[in-house]
Amino acid sequence: MATLPLLTDEAADPAARAVFDDIRAKRQTEYVNNFWRALAHDPALLQATWDRLQQVMAPGALDPLVKELIYVAVSVTNGCAYCTHSHTAAAKAKGMTPDMHAELLAVIAMAAQTNALATALQVPTDERFQA
Amino acid sequence: MATLPLLTDEAADPAARAVFDDIRAKRQTEYVNNFWRALAHDPALLQATWDRLQQVMAPGALDPLVKELIYVAVSVTNGCAYCTHSHTAAAKAKGMTPDMHAELLAVIAMAAQTNALATALQVPTDERFQA
Amino acid sequence: MATLPLLTDEAADPAARAVFDDIRAKRQTEYVNNFWRALAHDPALLQATWDRLQQVMAPGALDPLVKELIYVAVSVTNGCAYCTHSHTAAAKAKGMTPDMHAELLAVIAMAAQTNALATALQVPTDERFQA
Amino acid sequence: MATLPLLTDEAADPAARAVFDDIRAKRQTEYVNNFWRALAHDPALLQATWDRLQQVMAPGALDPLVKELIYVAVSVTNGCAYCTHSHTAAAKAKGMTPDMHAELLAVIAMAAQTNALATALQVPTDERFQA
Amino acid sequence: MATLPLLTDEAADPAARAVFDDIRAKRQTEYVNNFWRALAHDPALLQATWDRLQQVMAPGALDPLVKELIYVAVSVTNGCAYCTHSHTAAAKAKGMTPDMHAELLAVIAMAAQTNALATALQVPTDERFQA
Amino acid sequence: MATLPLLTDEAADPAARAVFDDIRAKRQTEYVNNFWRALAHDPALLQATWDRLQQVMAPGALDPLVKELIYVAVSVTNGCAYCTHSHTAAAKAKGMTPDMHAELLAVIAMAAQTNALATALQVPTDERFQA
Repeated sequence: MATLPLLTDEAADPAARAVFDDIRAKRQTEYVNNFWRALAHDPALLQATWDRLQQVMAPGALDPLVKELIYVAVSVTNGCAYCTHSHTAAAKAKGMTPDMHAELLAVIAMAAQTNALATALQVPTDERFQA
Repeated sequence: MATLPLLTDEAADPAARAVFDDIRAKRQTEYVNNFWRALAHDPALLQATWDRLQQVMAPGALDPLVKELIYVAVSVTNGCAYCTHSHTAAAKAKGMTPDMHAELLAVIAMAAQTNALATALQVPTDERFQA
Repeated sequence: MATLPLLTDEAADPAARAVFDDIRAKRQTEYVNNFWRALAHDPALLQATWDRLQQVMAPGALDPLVKELIYVAVSVTNGCAYCTHSHTAAAKAKGMTPDMHAELLAVIAMAAQTNALATALQVPTDERFQA
Repeated sequence: MATLPLLTDEAADPAARAVFDDIRAKRQTEYVNNFWRALAHDPALLQATWDRLQQVMAPGALDPLVKELIYVAVSVTNGCAYCTHSHTAAAKAKGMTPDMHAELLAVIAMAAQTNALATALQVPTDERFQA
Repeated sequence: MATLPLLTDEAADPAARAVFDDIRAKRQTEYVNNFWRALAHDPALLQATWDRLQQVMAPGALDPLVKELIYVAVSVTNGCAYCTHSHTAAAKAKGMTPDMHAELLAVIAMAAQTNALATALQVPTDERFQA
Repeated sequence: MATLPLLTDEAADPAARAVFDDIRAKRQTEYVNNFWRALAHDPALLQATWDRLQQVMAPGALDPLVKELIYVAVSVTNGCAYCTHSHTAAAKAKGMTPDMHAELLAVIAMAAQTNALATALQVPTDERFQA
């Protein structure tokens, strides 16, 4: 159902397979999800995306769960079904409780609503909001 | 520049002005920002939006700063200039440091990128991601 | 500020100028708005867009004001500032009252909110909704 | 396939079940659609969304069918499959004829097209369109 | 699963069927894809869309494959699953190689990423970029 | 007007300034545009974005002008004003003629229109389009 077949380990190029193995090692699971298997047709893009993802999602000034909540919010707003599923699952794995999930949904819905109103009204930005 | 004039306190209906006063009291500032002044043409919508915003953004399982970061993420993804400005300012006011801001941007950009790839590839959702 | 200069009548190609004249005649005004002046660099696209717009927005099973409200809703959701302004103005010209405008905004905001929730939850479509 | 299981009446919290019963009573049907069953994990959000929907979609300056057409337009533009299905079905139930449906589609497509052109050209807003 | 049934040749109005026949003749295939069969409920919209598509996608200053790549980029960014599938297939049929496909994906992802950053930062447009 | 001040060379961190110098050298111009100056608050993100952009936009199976046209298409569809301006200017600098520009606009508008129709109709993907 993808625009390119999902590559099994056998079908993947050695460079792509090395990324699969790194995903397995870092995530401590045998499972490599469909996104990486679809991306594996271009080993360089696969590698660049996986490397960047690790850097961006690492603990920093924001903790990994907060980053995952932000990731879900963007994915929902972009209407990406795959990403909404995969990052909601990731957020749960990183400790998102049902209450957190409920509040995440409420904030996303609230923002969608006021975004629409501000755009419909074409509200000019207050001077004090500008850096 | 808005599609409706921003209402001053004098021009606003008493019901709208009561919401302005409540905003001032709750936020402990004399300033009422443009969004509310544009929305004031419909006092019922103004009231409903302000009431709901307070409920949704109150401390809960997620703290108010985290909620504000999620709000920024949705606003950016929806391309809402006003909301990006106002909620970035709100996040700073609630304690977002420059490092947090930088990481917020990096996560939003990363999600935008993988959302596009997952959509371009039409990756089917892994069974294990489904509830 | 456009990506192509807005063409005055003098600068426009005769084919584009003929469209300007038709816009003036049909709309009974001397004013040709910026959208058409920007589009005039490609007289064929200008003509095709103007012709199609007249067909689509003509009275039919839906009246022109309802069509204009739908146009505003799409423009807001696409985040198009120009279109939100121009079609809000057009809706007012076609009889949109302040109450109608307020209800239009409330429906757009409501839909934005439930769209976000349905996407966040990845709700499967009920069989009975399918044609 | 949702990110949270759809709740049956039995699995739902009494507060959520009370909303289901109100939906049944107001809509005069036994059927409660999937959106509400997914939202039922957060009875407060379920209640708030259902209450607000009734207020917003009630007859007013715009009739319920026109509101439903606007809802479809937003849902399509946001790319929400669930909402496009459910509100197209609702519009049919409220009297949308095949001719109205065809004109709705034509206006949505026309707006999408000129939105894209205005954005590509970055057309500056005409002074006369500003409130 | 569509909001309107896909029309077979037998069920389609003669005007719609004439468009099906023209699609078959121009594309030299017996197959008429689902998009046209769904659109066939409105023969005038079907005809207008098919006519316009042929004009826009014809060889010109840009060759048909480049146009198809642009079409895919827009479809992905709009989150249109159907269009992403159909235009990716069309691009392959017009000569898109796996390397071209990989580069197309990389550019789409890069643009999505910098679009998000520019919006998050609300970067003002450089004077020199304005026409 | 940005959410963070644009950094001059003097205000920028040495790591950011090194990227500015690299931009100047590679682009053979003294001018560093606003996007990079806003991004310079996070030298690591600046460096990563600039490095990745060069890799992605380098000549390959697609030539740099075609890549730039795709970049414009994504930027327009995402409604990013800054990016639409900057990449339209870049496309002109790489050889986009007025005729190419006109055709680019026509394809973007056509895709926006059929994307909206396919989504409104919820057309199921033809089996033959799937990889």
